[in-house]
Amino acid sequence: MYAGKNVTRVDAYDKVLGRTKYTDDLCDKGAYVVRILHSSIAHGKVVSIDTSRAEKIPGVVRIFTCFDVKEKHYFPTAGHPWSTDAAHQDVADRLVLTEDVRFYGDDIGAVVAEDEVAASQAIEAIRVEYEEYPFVLDVQEAMKDGAPQIHKNYPNNILKHTSIRQGNYEEAVKEPGLIKVEGWYETPVVQHCHLENFICYAQMEGDRINIVSSTQIPHIVRRVVGQALGISWGKIRVVKPYIGGGFGNKQDVLYEPLCAWLCMQLGGHLVKIDIPREDTFVSNRVRHSIRSHIISWVRPDGTYAARKLEAFSDQGAYASHGHSIAAKGAGAFPQLYPCENVEVDAYTVFTNKSVAGAMRGYGIPQTMWAVEGHTEEVAARLGMDPVEFRRRNLMPVGYVDHFSKNELYDDSFNQCLDKAMAAMDYKRKYREYQNQTGDIRRGIGVSVFWYNTAVWPISLETSSCRMVLNPDGSLQVQLGETEIGQGADTAFAQMTADVLGVPLESVHVISCQDTDVTPFGTGAYASRQTYTAGFSIRQTGLLLKERILEYAHGLTRMPSYNLDIVDGNIVRTTDGRILMTLGELAAEALYSLNNSQHLTAESTAQIKSNAYSFGCTIAEVEVDIPMCKVKLLDLVNVHDAGNLINPALAAAQVHGGMSMGIGFGLSEQLMFDEKTGRALNNNLLDYKLSTCMDHPRLNALFVENPEPTSSFGTKGLGEPPACSVAPAIRNAVYQATGVFVNKAPVNPHNLFARFKEEGLL
Amino acid sequence: MYAGKNVTRVDAYDKVLGRTKYTDDLCDKGAYVVRILHSSIAHGKVVSIDTSRAEKIPGVVRIFTCFDVKEKHYFPTAGHPWSTDAAHQDVADRLVLTEDVRFYGDDIGAVVAEDEVAASQAIEAIRVEYEEYPFVLDVQEAMKDGAPQIHKNYPNNILKHTSIRQGNYEEAVKEPGLIKVEGWYETPVVQHCHLENFICYAQMEGDRINIVSSTQIPHIVRRVVGQALGISWGKIRVVKPYIGGGFGNKQDVLYEPLCAWLCMQLGGHLVKIDIPREDTFVSNRVRHSIRSHIISWVRPDGTYAARKLEAFSDQGAYASHGHSIAAKGAGAFPQLYPCENVEVDAYTVFTNKSVAGAMRGYGIPQTMWAVEGHTEEVAARLGMDPVEFRRRNLMPVGYVDHFSKNELYDDSFNQCLDKAMAAMDYKRKYREYQNQTGDIRRGIGVSVFWYNTAVWPISLETSSCRMVLNPDGSLQVQLGETEIGQGADTAFAQMTADVLGVPLESVHVISCQDTDVTPFGTGAYASRQTYTAGFSIRQTGLLLKERILEYAHGLTRMPSYNLDIVDGNIVRTTDGRILMTLGELAAEALYSLNNSQHLTAESTAQIKSNAYSFGCTIAEVEVDIPMCKVKLLDLVNVHDAGNLINPALAAAQVHGGMSMGIGFGLSEQLMFDEKTGRALNNNLLDYKLSTCMDHPRLNALFVENPEPTSSFGTKGLGEPPACSVAPAIRNAVYQATGVFVNKAPVNPHNLFARFKEEGLL
Repeated sequence: MYAGKNVTRVDAYDKVLGRTKYTDDLCDKGAYVVRILHSSIAHGKVVSIDTSRAEKIPGVVRIFTCFDVKEKHYFPTAGHPWSTDAAHQDVADRLVLTEDVRFYGDDIGAVVAEDEVAASQAIEAIRVEYEEYPFVLDVQEAMKDGAPQIHKNYPNNILKHTSIRQGNYEEAVKEPGLIKVEGWYETPVVQHCHLENFICYAQMEGDRINIVSSTQIPHIVRRVVGQALGISWGKIRVVKPYIGGGFGNKQDVLYEPLCAWLCMQLGGHLVKIDIPREDTFVSNRVRHSIRSHIISWVRPDGTYAARKLEAFSDQGAYASHGHSIAAKGAGAFPQLYPCENVEVDAYTVFTNKSVAGAMRGYGIPQTMWAVEGHTEEVAARLGMDPVEFRRRNLMPVGYVDHFSKNELYDDSFNQCLDKAMAAMDYKRKYREYQNQTGDIRRGIGVSVFWYNTAVWPISLETSSCRMVLNPDGSLQVQLGETEIGQGADTAFAQMTADVLGVPLESVHVISCQDTDVTPFGTGAYASRQTYTAGFSIRQTGLLLKERILEYAHGLTRMPSYNLDIVDGNIVRTTDGRILMTLGELAAEALYSLNNSQHLTAESTAQIKSNAYSFGCTIAEVEVDIPMCKVKLLDLVNVHDAGNLINPALAAAQVHGGMSMGIGFGLSEQLMFDEKTGRALNNNLLDYKLSTCMDHPRLNALFVENPEPTSSFGTKGLGEPPACSVAPAIRNAVYQATGVFVNKAPVNPHNLFARFKEEGLL
Repeated sequence: MYAGKNVTRVDAYDKVLGRTKYTDDLCDKGAYVVRILHSSIAHGKVVSIDTSRAEKIPGVVRIFTCFDVKEKHYFPTAGHPWSTDAAHQDVADRLVLTEDVRFYGDDIGAVVAEDEVAASQAIEAIRVEYEEYPFVLDVQEAMKDGAPQIHKNYPNNILKHTSIRQGNYEEAVKEPGLIKVEGWYETPVVQHCHLENFICYAQMEGDRINIVSSTQIPHIVRRVVGQALGISWGKIRVVKPYIGGGFGNKQDVLYEPLCAWLCMQLGGHLVKIDIPREDTFVSNRVRHSIRSHIISWVRPDGTYAARKLEAFSDQGAYASHGHSIAAKGAGAFPQLYPCENVEVDAYTVFTNKSVAGAMRGYGIPQTMWAVEGHTEEVAARLGMDPVEFRRRNLMPVGYVDHFSKNELYDDSFNQCLDKAMAAMDYKRKYREYQNQTGDIRRGIGVSVFWYNTAVWPISLETSSCRMVLNPDGSLQVQLGETEIGQGADTAFAQMTADVLGVPLESVHVISCQDTDVTPFGTGAYASRQTYTAGFSIRQTGLLLKERILEYAHGLTRMPSYNLDIVDGNIVRTTDGRILMTLGELAAEALYSLNNSQHLTAESTAQIKSNAYSFGCTIAEVEVDIPMCKVKLLDLVNVHDAGNLINPALAAAQVHGGMSMGIGFGLSEQLMFDEKTGRALNNNLLDYKLSTCMDHPRLNALFVENPEPTSSFGTKGLGEPPACSVAPAIRNAVYQATGVFVNKAPVNPHNLFARFKEEGLL
């Protein structure tokens, strides 16, 4: 059994040796390069674009403007599975280049040049005339009557409103003796900051267009490029090489449509779009800033009578993942701390800012910031221990969500909390840090999280797999699920080896997806891959094994039910004798003059189940009150992600997510100029990305309750690590100082304001 | 129906637009380049190699010599399907670099450098010390006792001897009144001269080696590299891009093993071997020079009493395709003109010359040169019309070969001859050209040929195919059979469209083979591909169609037996109504929330049948006797290759083969210095390759008798066009001058000798 073992990443050596090929490594040096002309206003209409000076710059091949886009094929960009039901399709509001400017940085033109210097010079030399409209940057301002209207057909800029009603909130709050706790919570605009910026290139082959892209979702990109170009989807081939991180930003179809369109305008010539970091911040995707308003009505015994959440999610200028992120966050609210009487209203609202899309956690980090901050406040108001208060109210064992049918099968929350508390010596420190005085104070804070693996039943979960047996008994595995740096290929190899009964080194996972030949799968998102691909790996592996044993029957005369594959050998189960190696069988099958068979198997698994992932963070901080500075002393995440296929890789996932959570909690925010709408700190100098310099020891622990619905006992772990870190830090700061900071990040700027308000300064 | 139509090549636009990527286009510019150190003696042993001066040349990375090859894994190079039966495996007599020199040009070392200049300079700077042995260049000299022994275990240098005995030759020749006709015939060493020289590159990925090669046989290359490196075959991945011709030279595994070995010596660094044209002539493969001795005993009525063939095939220094070429030629002898009493002895003999391997026709052009020259002489001796004499003796309708079970189902020979004669106005010209005098004379000559498609039952015929349905109803087709410039992909697309019932533009044949994911197939050789891949295309297409119609049943409620796919639509056959498009079905199947299926199909077809291809050439020449010069005035080839999938591409195949036949007949020969064994004219200036300047109008005609064993009525056409051209030219020269030229080519050098002998000069 390889599942559960810390085998070395299958791509470790190539990465260390620099052999791994990323998109730019693969692109022919003769490619034309592109620089995109971004709008320098936040809202308005392009009146004219003067490219005359730019066209004279040596090396400029051609300049395209929004006025060259004659056929207006609006397309959606969200990396969601397609739905053939129009009502369930994503909003199609993008054009490859647009005359209608909706944020500072909108795509209004593109320079194609022989080199990047010429392209950049040409961008500078272009003059644009606009008709300017008023713009709005604040999510609640945008909802007001009379606010600038960003898209037609969306009154008050509301893209969508989700509401949940359980019981009767209005009646419930009348119960005598209830304590009302109310708060507003807000998370900032942050960006994914993956190491490899988005890059893609396109070239025509015959009448088809071939796109190589740094994407998480090659099969979805194919479909969206088809929509964007108005061509049949089979005319598009998308190849995904190794990629340098995505974190959800590459779960949007970013510039593949523009790249393909430019290529087709240039007779199919190779065209490359390599987004600079500065553009990545502004013109890719960001995390939704969500402002949440929570009212809780609690009984003195620490139980909830009624709860209410209003969430205002800042979509930015285009629909992208639309309302699904706010909806996922809204869904967490009544499930994490079930209560009979609940009202939830989540609004996703257009503003004239950079477009928000998927980012690790998909609404849950924002919701946990609000909910777990609020929970801390409720406990404080009740004078209860924050952990005990949570234990009393958290989803109980046996809880079943009526929609997803997800169930809490084990006592995961308490097990995770117990493990985290033990690891941090929580109880002692919690007591010790009560009633501190002085400038420097310490605190220890906790946060739990709830996360839903995968997307069923909201949308399709499907995974197809193909396995190809080599004449030496090794095999290739092809999946539409993508390696994006997280180690997916290694987990897939471990699963495959176990299902087939072959040594791990015999399994070659084809890392590079090619929509022409790779079985259909929707890609890396929603922490779905180990869960969903597990089904197609097991199903296809069993199918291949059946074919192998059937062939073995012909060679050995033994009935196939008395045969098995063990460690790469065909074994007679009745006495354990090795009858032949799998390699001998495979070579004989391939080259048999009697019955030549290339043994392969392929199948689609549709997944109609889903699973909860749970966990918690405990953070220990030291706060320098005069300096308004938080030093993170220690941090632990404990996760129940079911069985771990590779504990070391799982820990690495958690470490990465914790780092992202630290930045979310302490330092990161993309700021916009209120006068122009321009992003102010769209670079890695001014945007305070969390780095290892900001990290304490990152402690990743696990509770492994096998998920009963899962083919390998696994459930999601990709996103959960980023969900509870920031509120745990915030709660630790509260425990240290008695000050609640409701606006993330807990940076000196926000701390100064709160310490002033609370009289600490 | 697309089969039978002249649709445009699927790769036409890309080739015309320069978009097609060949091996060198795909190789990263950071690759190390290789120049191979060839021996400068014909036979001996390397005593020492001094690389000290060479190593100092800037840009030289490392120099490897035969002494660096510590693990001696002998490997075969022939592009034959593997046999798990050791008795049927090709001779393994090669090492990546050898101390034992067997021809002038043997591979004894390799320079790896950063660029080609450094590599070439280093080759020049290396000093080699040899122990020299006597060498032998003539095939019959090599068979003599006391001749230099080139390989151990092969007495008299005989690699193998094939003999056929039918009836009783010795008794039959005693029949009174027989006329004995005897002659010696000889063909030269020629080279394939494909446009793109052999090139490959290799790089390691993890512990696997990835080779991109200009080869006809990617799956076979994988196996041979495994043998040559002593590593498991699954550790090797071979990718074949578009290639610029092969003609059989790339049906040998040429330098992929050396390239892979060098790469592994250099820690997996990217290494490229790009063979210069001069090396291509010497160190790749050449056509076997065959010396044939034929004795015929004929009755005055024009029937054969007994026939005998002795053939001496010059293998050169290594076994390569071994005896199979001489054996194929030998097999043609008793079948083309059946006779009760036959003796055939074919010897394949090592000499210290460049290695002979597969070349278009695989022994048949050499045999037809001998047999059809001889046939002309027999007819002349009998005073019979050469066509009538052939018609009387050719394989009759209904003839069945006892071994291959091939049958002549139709009156193909006479139909081909009739068509060729009509096209050339043969009868009139034949009469007109009798009894000419003067310096300039014209003649018209004929030759037929016999060719066996594919290789069953001599070895394995297997073809696997995979089809992948796209969400718009288009599909990809993957086959191990390779496009090598001949138009195979276009024929495969036509067949697929017909089997599936979809428009041709909906079929995307994956041209590039990748042994990791491409279904197993042995590649382009033996004129097999349209015949063999036809089986797997039809079988897999029917399987996919069945799955599609089964899914259609679920969507339309109609029983699948009342459904069909017509022109990309799901049609109810009972009333012809279009129920939905295939694209609608495919999208629904992929994205169905109820039953998501990625519709694909894959299957292996083992082919246990085979087919004869037939045809003839008529050539008209003008001979300038004093100048010893032949001008080719007109040329027609007529082929029965069964149904033609694409007549225009079939004609193009024939044109190419005719051009090759013209060179074989009139000008081409690779010459060797008798004193050293060195090739003398290994360049395109001195080697007189046939070009369009030497061609008359090339007239390709067809007789289409559907082959009953074939899945599409087709049989081989790749090699046949090269088989009968040279003897037809030679016979035309005889008809013009009365002089038989038995040694090819009919160039001024050979004509001068013969005209002198016959008193014309």
